[in-house]
Amino acid sequence: MPDPFPSSLVIEGAYFSGISAGIKPSGAPDLGAIVFPHGAHWVAAITTNSLKAAPLRHLEKLRKYQRPLRAIIVNSGNANACTGKEGELAVQRILAQARRILTGILPTPPRADEIIMASTGVIGVPLPVKKICDALPFLFRPEALSSHNVDAFARAIMTTDRSPKVCIRTLTLPRGVSSRSAKILGVAKGAGMIAPSMATMLAFVVTDLLPPRPLFSRIFQDALAESFHRITVDGEMSTNDLVLCAAVPNAQRAWDPSLKESFSQALTEVMQELALAIVRDGEGARSLVEVEIKGARTRREAEELARRVANSLLVKVALFGRDPNWGRIAAALGSTGIPLREEHLKITIGGVALFAGGRPRGKAAEERARNAMEKDRITIGIVVGKGPGEATFYTCDLGIPYVELNSSYRS
Amino acid sequence: MPDPFPSSLVIEGAYFSGISAGIKPSGAPDLGAIVFPHGAHWVAAITTNSLKAAPLRHLEKLRKYQRPLRAIIVNSGNANACTGKEGELAVQRILAQARRILTGILPTPPRADEIIMASTGVIGVPLPVKKICDALPFLFRPEALSSHNVDAFARAIMTTDRSPKVCIRTLTLPRGVSSRSAKILGVAKGAGMIAPSMATMLAFVVTDLLPPRPLFSRIFQDALAESFHRITVDGEMSTNDLVLCAAVPNAQRAWDPSLKESFSQALTEVMQELALAIVRDGEGARSLVEVEIKGARTRREAEELARRVANSLLVKVALFGRDPNWGRIAAALGSTGIPLREEHLKITIGGVALFAGGRPRGKAAEERARNAMEKDRITIGIVVGKGPGEATFYTCDLGIPYVELNSSYRS
Repeated sequence: MPDPFPSSLVIEGAYFSGISAGIKPSGAPDLGAIVFPHGAHWVAAITTNSLKAAPLRHLEKLRKYQRPLRAIIVNSGNANACTGKEGELAVQRILAQARRILTGILPTPPRADEIIMASTGVIGVPLPVKKICDALPFLFRPEALSSHNVDAFARAIMTTDRSPKVCIRTLTLPRGVSSRSAKILGVAKGAGMIAPSMATMLAFVVTDLLPPRPLFSRIFQDALAESFHRITVDGEMSTNDLVLCAAVPNAQRAWDPSLKESFSQALTEVMQELALAIVRDGEGARSLVEVEIKGARTRREAEELARRVANSLLVKVALFGRDPNWGRIAAALGSTGIPLREEHLKITIGGVALFAGGRPRGKAAEERARNAMEKDRITIGIVVGKGPGEATFYTCDLGIPYVELNSSYRS
Repeated sequence: MPDPFPSSLVIEGAYFSGISAGIKPSGAPDLGAIVFPHGAHWVAAITTNSLKAAPLRHLEKLRKYQRPLRAIIVNSGNANACTGKEGELAVQRILAQARRILTGILPTPPRADEIIMASTGVIGVPLPVKKICDALPFLFRPEALSSHNVDAFARAIMTTDRSPKVCIRTLTLPRGVSSRSAKILGVAKGAGMIAPSMATMLAFVVTDLLPPRPLFSRIFQDALAESFHRITVDGEMSTNDLVLCAAVPNAQRAWDPSLKESFSQALTEVMQELALAIVRDGEGARSLVEVEIKGARTRREAEELARRVANSLLVKVALFGRDPNWGRIAAALGSTGIPLREEHLKITIGGVALFAGGRPRGKAAEERARNAMEKDRITIGIVVGKGPGEATFYTCDLGIPYVELNSSYRS
């Protein structure tokens, strides 16, 4: 068991819980909640998949009203996706039951539109509503629900993750603000089906500093573009992806315009750390791989080139085999159709140039690159020209463990 | 060894050859040629990869002049891609040497712009020019070069293919044409890196019936759209893909406008058969998988949906594991962003409905589908609505053999 969550890292006004509700046959934790007794402001990004899971369709509706968030309930082991009307009714029944229980606990009764839900797991299996409803009183027990219980929540939302993913940053506040610091706490689950559009991943970020709404939303979108939209495990996109950021208002930490830069940076860092933790834990992956493009004509072209290399199955399988097969990287770059010239192209792996000045650098260079590929973080550096466009994507190797995990996931 | 190529299937005026030039360390055949002593008219489609292999850059230039084709030389074991200026010089030297030898053999000396080259194999390794030039006299020996040597040619262009891919169709000609029949003969190699944009595949189609040029080109493009642009193994696109169709003029088989339909159909059939042979032989694949979309709003949307499912790594890995995981099919469909409604969606595998009318059909249906997945041809049937849009894509399962083959291809 990990250390208890340090008090200094607690977010005031945010309570976490995680228990086993019996959704997973293994008996592992599978039901979690974050409760905000006095409410939190929230922004969220959800999958662009047109077959969204039932809880996300519900969340999407509520998002419009911009009501404060009092509680979010998250289950793993079942995606509640492609479950039709029944799936929607399941969400309604669980949220109604949660509201009844929370009414007896919270200082003021929560409204129906102040509680939301998220799910992750297998698609197309009816959600076990009764099991979840029966478990809710335990989820909200005073012993289970605590500002220190972040780890229990992080474990309850895991699917094929090898470890829970938690990250925190502390911000020093300027003089004149009564509290001296603010915090940003993030929790995520990932593993398979990770793509720039966020696939089967959930991430929840909670902070005790509240920027004004339009700025909050803008900072969140910018952080998203630099984190979860830059990772890919297998190019897939799930029906359940969600990144949610909740800010708990706190009189002692009133927003100050001078905080914009540092808050934005800290939020980006938290989201990047979670995103990289997801890639590092890509199903069966051994290494985190950074694909760095420089010299493209535009940033957009750089992003497209980086994404294509990061998503190339042949590149990822070569990485698995520790084969410095730069030819596959070149083929992936060219497959974008973006004009490239061999004589301007440079490809390095782990800092070792394999192709430069229009010619391969030979077997000795490949041998050195092969050694660099044994590390748990590998950088593929690519220069495509002399333009100002730069971009970095993160991916992982993909091999036999991925196939083993995904060819028998449900059996 | 296969049976000698039957005389009835010979294309008059087209000679095939295939030998070992020592490019492949294994000593397997790796150099082939098709020679047209009196020339042939040709149309071709090449990869859209912006880092095209040296022989394709050369071919692309010559294509403009529409000169008759006298010979095409094809090597396997080396892609001559990302080889810079040196790669271009290699093509020039080999073609010059071929021209010298053919000048002594052909009825009239070939011009420099009447001989082309194609390559397939590993990217970024200098082409062994001397080995190839030294082998050319053997490639063009009278014993090696024959209308019956189609199989030797087909074997010489293989890389990781498990078997040569040859296909022929005979067309009955209308009365009034002196000959009673015409033929269309196709040879292809494929295996890995197969995607709708044709990846590491080469296909050569030869016919003794010559349609007028603009029609020839149109029929070829239509056949391409229905064949090689409908297959995918791993979503990759190579630097070397080429589909070339050569028609040998023959006074006894003058074109007759009434032949348009039947010629077009036969050419499409030949190209489809080759395309399916490539998918069936996808690296490590056990089954050919047909993804059939019906009821889309437009044909274009149907194609996008079919392509996405056929390219989904998680779907292909589930097929490898014989897991009727229709949820991944649904997630792949939705990831296109094309509006879909669960209640209009129907997903079948091997004719067994797994999801219909907005709900999963349960474990018994999945068990029946799992049995259907043992076959070597599996159909995934998808109805997305009531629209007129239909499309079919072909793919294969992808599993541990693919990873094993591609993580150590070069070592």
